[in-house]
Amino acid sequence: MAPKAHLTRRYEFAASHRLHSDRLSEDENWRIYGKCNNPYGHGHNYGLEVTVTGPIDARTGMVANLVDLDRVVQETVIERFDHKNLNVEIAEFREQVPTSEALLMEIHRLLAERWPQEAAFAGTRLTRIRLQETGKNFFEYTE
Amino acid sequence: MAPKAHLTRRYEFAASHRLHSDRLSEDENWRIYGKCNNPYGHGHNYGLEVTVTGPIDARTGMVANLVDLDRVVQETVIERFDHKNLNVEIAEFREQVPTSEALLMEIHRLLAERWPQEAAFAGTRLTRIRLQETGKNFFEYTE
Amino acid sequence: MAPKAHLTRRYEFAASHRLHSDRLSEDENWRIYGKCNNPYGHGHNYGLEVTVTGPIDARTGMVANLVDLDRVVQETVIERFDHKNLNVEIAEFREQVPTSEALLMEIHRLLAERWPQEAAFAGTRLTRIRLQETGKNFFEYTE
Amino acid sequence: MAPKAHLTRRYEFAASHRLHSDRLSEDENWRIYGKCNNPYGHGHNYGLEVTVTGPIDARTGMVANLVDLDRVVQETVIERFDHKNLNVEIAEFREQVPTSEALLMEIHRLLAERWPQEAAFAGTRLTRIRLQETGKNFFEYTE
Amino acid sequence: MAPKAHLTRRYEFAASHRLHSDRLSEDENWRIYGKCNNPYGHGHNYGLEVTVTGPIDARTGMVANLVDLDRVVQETVIERFDHKNLNVEIAEFREQVPTSEALLMEIHRLLAERWPQEAAFAGTRLTRIRLQETGKNFFEYTE
Amino acid sequence: MAPKAHLTRRYEFAASHRLHSDRLSEDENWRIYGKCNNPYGHGHNYGLEVTVTGPIDARTGMVANLVDLDRVVQETVIERFDHKNLNVEIAEFREQVPTSEALLMEIHRLLAERWPQEAAFAGTRLTRIRLQETGKNFFEYTE
Repeated sequence: MAPKAHLTRRYEFAASHRLHSDRLSEDENWRIYGKCNNPYGHGHNYGLEVTVTGPIDARTGMVANLVDLDRVVQETVIERFDHKNLNVEIAEFREQVPTSEALLMEIHRLLAERWPQEAAFAGTRLTRIRLQETGKNFFEYTE
Repeated sequence: MAPKAHLTRRYEFAASHRLHSDRLSEDENWRIYGKCNNPYGHGHNYGLEVTVTGPIDARTGMVANLVDLDRVVQETVIERFDHKNLNVEIAEFREQVPTSEALLMEIHRLLAERWPQEAAFAGTRLTRIRLQETGKNFFEYTE
Repeated sequence: MAPKAHLTRRYEFAASHRLHSDRLSEDENWRIYGKCNNPYGHGHNYGLEVTVTGPIDARTGMVANLVDLDRVVQETVIERFDHKNLNVEIAEFREQVPTSEALLMEIHRLLAERWPQEAAFAGTRLTRIRLQETGKNFFEYTE
Repeated sequence: MAPKAHLTRRYEFAASHRLHSDRLSEDENWRIYGKCNNPYGHGHNYGLEVTVTGPIDARTGMVANLVDLDRVVQETVIERFDHKNLNVEIAEFREQVPTSEALLMEIHRLLAERWPQEAAFAGTRLTRIRLQETGKNFFEYTE
Repeated sequence: MAPKAHLTRRYEFAASHRLHSDRLSEDENWRIYGKCNNPYGHGHNYGLEVTVTGPIDARTGMVANLVDLDRVVQETVIERFDHKNLNVEIAEFREQVPTSEALLMEIHRLLAERWPQEAAFAGTRLTRIRLQETGKNFFEYTE
Repeated sequence: MAPKAHLTRRYEFAASHRLHSDRLSEDENWRIYGKCNNPYGHGHNYGLEVTVTGPIDARTGMVANLVDLDRVVQETVIERFDHKNLNVEIAEFREQVPTSEALLMEIHRLLAERWPQEAAFAGTRLTRIRLQETGKNFFEYTE
């Protein structure tokens, strides 16, 4: 059986957001989200890492072709979130607070939905998504 | 004469902005600012470096005390811009497009104005401000 | 069931140490620890990463509040080790050589002990501690 | 039982390669490998991370001595690949395309073969090899 | 007069080279270039920083548009050197040893030649080129 | 005339120190140096960058050979300060507080003294020394 390896690719996008829940009082919003609750919003350069796990293809010597991975991440994630206001422009964040955890899960959902539709990724799995919010914290979802 | 050295300290803040000029047509705004013209804004983690140049104080062995520098940068820059929407919340950017160049000059103006008021910085000069917008570009103003 | 995510936060502290065991001969100490056995000690900027794993809270959209994590790591780890001489000022390293492995385990012990006392961390687990000693090596303990 | 920890050490080497398979047509080679198929080759600074997992030795306070790890990685990996043309000078890549995945597996094979021969590594396992090809992608093999 | 600022943008490309001079004996080549003289070549990920200095345009708030800078660096530098063998594919390095210093000067020459042809750069100067060869060394040419 | 370029090389060393002046009262020491005044000392991984400026040698294509630079920095700086207690083991810091500014000037003095003795550096100048103390601050001396 072919050995399995993990391939990770890094992407970057910039977006703005405001952490605020309509189901919480003004005081609770401030206590929980602090300055991230600022009504006019703020923003981040988000760093994204996508990890794909699979056997190394005997013909190409690759787990997956970076050209395919770049195309899919570009269409699915970057075009949707880059240079956007998450609260206003992303339907999923009308109801849900766009914390990094929620954004991470939404990115995972979008990529996982697309995965089986791509012949190029047959035999591989999307095993880890890492979302870096600032130089001091990051969030991961692992399969 | 005491030798002169340069001390540089790094800070980080997060903010959102929209690049848009009321003096330009919609088409010109789009042509010049591209996706940064998105009406709902986007954001960045800005990296800031402040360089202070001066003689090394014979008594303390320092150019300037980092405690004083941190206090002044915190009060003058971080509190003003961190977790803010630059277009809406910063008076200077009501009239002026908040490009990184404009933000750099505004940060320099604020620090340069404060400098002579601080006894702790006597004999030193504010020689360089560097503002990093993303992992791929940064802007500098040098005295 | 709520999906689980991992939140990681980075901290930094500076400390000095000497690698030396009273149970080893002078020769053995030198052979094992090399220049780290220098009797006058040396030091490092330690980089610390703390990973918390848990369900994303439906109300806040968070695994844990960074404000709580910062408070606990500050009180438990940073105040204890930052700007300290590990051999002289930390009781645990009177008997035990303060290698990075030992410091990692001590940091884990301190945080793990505190974890169940914090209501803010209910439902989460402390799954990984990473301690970076220099730009070239790091040490991890995983649950 | 002694607790187990993971020790990771970083190395760097520079090499050139060409991605080309004699079993593929010229068109297929170009379609799969793109500019990496350039007949004259190109090169990279490869970043290598080696992770060793084991109990912390009660006598030394270490998982493994970095001096031993450096010696073995130097002899087994760095001397073999640093400043080399992978396609021409490495026998394993005469038949096999030197993708980063293939290089990763070859590095793992060389280290895993050497591991049981070193008394210094008794009781430890080689649990992860990470090979960074550029600032934007890396490859991992985990035991 | 409009204040001047410096804008710096980072790029990356991968190439292979061999350090060898036909005007030196085999021994001298080895003594001077060491393992970089390996006849089959080796390679690097080169990091490139281009700094443009100029007044901040009152209309756009920019020193130069990154879209223009990216286009010019792409056409002039990246397309020429990325995924290439410098000794074989670049005419200037048939006679001249492709050290990082020589590559730096060649990149500067190409960009400086192009500068006056671009209306987008009118009023600006190309003040610094930085070429990073490995994580441990970089080379700069300043106007 | 041959064009001039700047070559910068990075080094790292680890040391411990205590910021304390016998000419200041206990209170003044604490007010100026804060936790850096801790009587048992603390430590850092210092990052050092040495910049050499000179014409590019027509024969070798280099400003200076990194082998020579590494040898001189190793003998002059690294062997003296690495894994040392600056206050106790370095004569210059018996009388002088080992701030990063003072350490920077001492490193510059040692290298500048050595420079004219090295035939390999003929025609070059030591133009910049940068000393990084933590991820958040660095100190520079420029000729």
